[in-house]
Amino acid sequence: MGDRNVAEVDLHNLEVLDPLIGQCQQLVREVAIPYQWEVLNDRNPEAIPTHAVENFRVAAGRARGEFHGMVFQDSDVAKWLEAAAWSLCQTPNPDLEKAADELIELMADAQCGDGYLNTYFILNAPQERWTNLAECHELYCAGHLIEAGVAFFQATGKRRLLEVVCRLADHLGTVFGPERDQLHGYDGHPEIELALARLYEATKERRYLTLANYFVEQRGTEPHFYDIEYEKRQQSRAAKSGGTPWMIKNKAYSQAHLPLSEQRTATGHAVRFAYLMTAVAHLARLRQNEQQRQTCLRLWQNTVQRQLYVTGAIGSQGAGEAFSSDYDLPNDTAYAESCASIGLMMFARRMLELELDSRYADVMERALYNTVLGSIAFDGRHYFYVNPLEVHPKTLKSNGIYNHVSPVRRPWFGCACCPPNIARLFTSIGHYIYTPSTDALYVNLYVGNRVAISVDGHALRLLISGGYPWREEVEIAVESAPPIAHTLALRLPEWCSVPQASLNGEPVNCEPRKGYLHISRTWQQGDRVKLSLPMQVRRVYGHPQLRNLAGKVAIQRGPLIYCLEEADNGTELHNLWLHSDSRFSVMEGSGLFNGKILLQADGARLQHTHSEETALYNYDKVPGQLEPQRLTFIPWFSWGNRGEGEMRIWINER
Amino acid sequence: MGDRNVAEVDLHNLEVLDPLIGQCQQLVREVAIPYQWEVLNDRNPEAIPTHAVENFRVAAGRARGEFHGMVFQDSDVAKWLEAAAWSLCQTPNPDLEKAADELIELMADAQCGDGYLNTYFILNAPQERWTNLAECHELYCAGHLIEAGVAFFQATGKRRLLEVVCRLADHLGTVFGPERDQLHGYDGHPEIELALARLYEATKERRYLTLANYFVEQRGTEPHFYDIEYEKRQQSRAAKSGGTPWMIKNKAYSQAHLPLSEQRTATGHAVRFAYLMTAVAHLARLRQNEQQRQTCLRLWQNTVQRQLYVTGAIGSQGAGEAFSSDYDLPNDTAYAESCASIGLMMFARRMLELELDSRYADVMERALYNTVLGSIAFDGRHYFYVNPLEVHPKTLKSNGIYNHVSPVRRPWFGCACCPPNIARLFTSIGHYIYTPSTDALYVNLYVGNRVAISVDGHALRLLISGGYPWREEVEIAVESAPPIAHTLALRLPEWCSVPQASLNGEPVNCEPRKGYLHISRTWQQGDRVKLSLPMQVRRVYGHPQLRNLAGKVAIQRGPLIYCLEEADNGTELHNLWLHSDSRFSVMEGSGLFNGKILLQADGARLQHTHSEETALYNYDKVPGQLEPQRLTFIPWFSWGNRGEGEMRIWINER
Repeated sequence: MGDRNVAEVDLHNLEVLDPLIGQCQQLVREVAIPYQWEVLNDRNPEAIPTHAVENFRVAAGRARGEFHGMVFQDSDVAKWLEAAAWSLCQTPNPDLEKAADELIELMADAQCGDGYLNTYFILNAPQERWTNLAECHELYCAGHLIEAGVAFFQATGKRRLLEVVCRLADHLGTVFGPERDQLHGYDGHPEIELALARLYEATKERRYLTLANYFVEQRGTEPHFYDIEYEKRQQSRAAKSGGTPWMIKNKAYSQAHLPLSEQRTATGHAVRFAYLMTAVAHLARLRQNEQQRQTCLRLWQNTVQRQLYVTGAIGSQGAGEAFSSDYDLPNDTAYAESCASIGLMMFARRMLELELDSRYADVMERALYNTVLGSIAFDGRHYFYVNPLEVHPKTLKSNGIYNHVSPVRRPWFGCACCPPNIARLFTSIGHYIYTPSTDALYVNLYVGNRVAISVDGHALRLLISGGYPWREEVEIAVESAPPIAHTLALRLPEWCSVPQASLNGEPVNCEPRKGYLHISRTWQQGDRVKLSLPMQVRRVYGHPQLRNLAGKVAIQRGPLIYCLEEADNGTELHNLWLHSDSRFSVMEGSGLFNGKILLQADGARLQHTHSEETALYNYDKVPGQLEPQRLTFIPWFSWGNRGEGEMRIWINER
Repeated sequence: MGDRNVAEVDLHNLEVLDPLIGQCQQLVREVAIPYQWEVLNDRNPEAIPTHAVENFRVAAGRARGEFHGMVFQDSDVAKWLEAAAWSLCQTPNPDLEKAADELIELMADAQCGDGYLNTYFILNAPQERWTNLAECHELYCAGHLIEAGVAFFQATGKRRLLEVVCRLADHLGTVFGPERDQLHGYDGHPEIELALARLYEATKERRYLTLANYFVEQRGTEPHFYDIEYEKRQQSRAAKSGGTPWMIKNKAYSQAHLPLSEQRTATGHAVRFAYLMTAVAHLARLRQNEQQRQTCLRLWQNTVQRQLYVTGAIGSQGAGEAFSSDYDLPNDTAYAESCASIGLMMFARRMLELELDSRYADVMERALYNTVLGSIAFDGRHYFYVNPLEVHPKTLKSNGIYNHVSPVRRPWFGCACCPPNIARLFTSIGHYIYTPSTDALYVNLYVGNRVAISVDGHALRLLISGGYPWREEVEIAVESAPPIAHTLALRLPEWCSVPQASLNGEPVNCEPRKGYLHISRTWQQGDRVKLSLPMQVRRVYGHPQLRNLAGKVAIQRGPLIYCLEEADNGTELHNLWLHSDSRFSVMEGSGLFNGKILLQADGARLQHTHSEETALYNYDKVPGQLEPQRLTFIPWFSWGNRGEGEMRIWINER
């Protein structure tokens, strides 16, 4: 596994300049974070009171009252705090910091003497702590608090919350572990594992790494913890609960059906899977553990080789918000949860840190530029939870297989869990753009930005620009004055067949290593690397075992998947055909698509009369005739911004 | 509407000789009816005790005990009795008749003084009679009892059960009606309406027709009976039930969201819809009611023009076992319940009686020869509840959208409601084959049979033979000696483009009327009508708004839909293509397909290496190449008899 060390970019030293990503950051900073704060404090008259901060106030003894909300309500507050922290790195905001500081004090006051901190149990059922890990999200909440503590420390240097969460983690270390008198358990919703790995990296305290590893290794072992825990609860109840809980009957839902070392396929709830694997990949590197590394490789490979949508989404069914099975990727009933693609980016990032191979970054990019970008509306106030690859609005209300699908984004403040995830991602996007390693600075994504990377105590300052993902030229300019010897490793995207690089006008001729072009040099101010990434429009075909894609084609340009929408092409998108030899025209968009690239190509439509007389089934010939139609494609992430209408990524080809 | 009278064939005078249908009848008679009797009497060690007959024993005071089973348990017994009755028409069976007689005595003893008869309420909750019609199937059970009473009387001449059910119907007439002190309600599961219409026809007592009509006309009116009934129950309860019951929130599920005269589309639970429409069509004729007739025409038209599968199935989703919306007919997630196609046949039959137009018989035939025949295994002991048009076994267990789909027929004694429906249908198939009318004997289906029809007091005896649905020649031979003047109206199937008829060797040249060829004559013994129904193999294409069928074709020969199965064509049926200009070869089947016709045509398969290296998404060209493959098609009703394997009706065409 090598002795290479990786680090993460200091977000104070990174400024996103990219219009697309930058706009999302701005919306998060200016709209989402303040709005969410109002909602968490029950100050928004339009939203249902969450009681989220109030729960902490009551637990801290500063207010009277009861717990209200979901069993995982605390995590909403924690995720808000984490997003706020990352946001402060880019954009200092005294009011925001003050509000966060006060919230942190509240959390510290609410914390029990032994370090326990979870307002649901503190207020509702203090004697039921740690009795239902399968269902009650108890360690999940702890994990999000820990992530917030780490983020806030890294963002502000303030230790208050970090100390709170260390006490919490130390408490967990007494409760959970291999000793006889400890609980040999783990949470139904993975999160604590990845959080403890981060806490370890922030504090260098080995016990947090040990505990994270304990949770990962215990998962799915026999005798099964969920069953033991459930039995214990049943015995202590006067009235037996009727019927085994779903989580226990369906252990695969939470990836607890087998030890991870025996799991062969990505299965169950997609977000749980992604959070778990993010942790395992991180642990594999921190612990230099070969078995865990093999587990990651095996499950990564199954995910991207057999269960990944072309939009970088995972989770092909609404039932359980889960994976289905190898090659089962329906377009219209897909779940493709926004949070799952964010989780996939997190997993990809940790895989990159494990092994700097561009294939991980390729998936990360596919997820970011399609599903994740597509989850937010242009106005920043609406949001997709589920991201279908094909939608037929007329049918959504009448057929139950589409219960989870919406043809337009919904006001995102209605949903508590996903918007904070989006907020955390965009405010920390620098952690995905770069993987700083001792041997090189790996540039994974070409999001325009200005950054300062520490190299042997000196600051290497770069400016990445160029208009990605629309323009084919990326420029990396060195802005730091003192010469610094270092290697820039530039990812060559898998979708680009003939990339070319030049340094100060001279072609760079060297073999890429694992998909990265390594340019070693003593970098001087004014040095310019130009990366030419021709973005010819490419037709994409599914693996032959993808039965939903037989005879269909998708269109990709650069990292972006394109689609047809009703607004440009009319209804009945299933009656459109793209000619196999059509050439694509590339056009600048206008209006809603200003600054974006649209595509057009010659195709055909099956024209037919809309007569009452046309039979449902017709003998001998297709009712209707093919007429030429020019097809207009838009970037899929920009769909659904013009009201309800049909949409398709995978279209008929002839 | 005319003054033509229609009747039904006396099943004593009909003998089915057709191998296909006859075999089903034999299985029902020799296997299903005896077996079900054992199960209903808890004498089968392999089946869960149903307590179905025991409930009547307890209610009659002949045994001690409690009620066990579903709220509609009585209907299983009633449906068994009805199937037994029709069976006795064809094949006298003293033991069976004796068992039925004893059962009938039991039912008579269980009946309350006021005529009420429902063991669930009698034993469990006598004071809750008629308090939850939306959910408790109370009139549904009464309807099946009534049907059994009518059938047993028609089969044996015995009046005992008929009198029991008349007392029951009279009791219903006191409880339900327009008077202030009556209940202005109707059952959540239509059935009583069609049963009372039959009771009227059997007894000529107008009050039964009036009551049937009352139920139909009340349905869906405001103020809504479900709401009123629910409110009343809530007020009388100490503890309010939590949450509005689904039936009340989703009135369309039971076609109670609007008065029928305002309903424009087939909606909700498919079996409920079919039973309801069967009643409305029957009432429309009996009452010569134009508004009801228009309702039937409108809803029939919507069903067959926009919501019918090519296999004669209805019900496109598992949620609610229901219709979806116009043109939404997915092949793999279809519900297509066997009972719904039987219900569709019942509806079609009553439409034929209303208007002798062959389009109703065309649908009836499509349902019989595809979904209904396909619902039973060749061994008669296994059964499909759901009849998909495309199945991919590997995925069924992993994707929740397929929860209702099985790739093979299940032992049919596990399901209580559908096998009796199949039994009733096949033992009374004569009622569908013929519609005897004063102006002609309409022959709707070419099931081989021998029949005697009463014409002006004389018996016209016919023998229909020919090997339908495999052979193209149907022969109708007159076997009765005295000359009888009558018209034979022979249906010309819509799938046959060039039918020809001859009488005693001479061509019959006359214009068909509403799809029937009327041959009027004084029929003599030895007269032979030969109907030539060329069965060229036809390609079938879906209406252009059927988005699931874009680019696909189905194959039909005669009334039979054909399909591809894995056993003949290999896996990955989605990678097979039929050439648009291929010619079909017609072949005799062997082994399992002995006596059946199979088809073959030239096609192609996308061959590909099963390499781990093949990417999930491929640029520029389809991974793999088309290689010729000869495609083998089997009659779809015979699928799933060779273990689990892929199956497809709608295949790619190029």
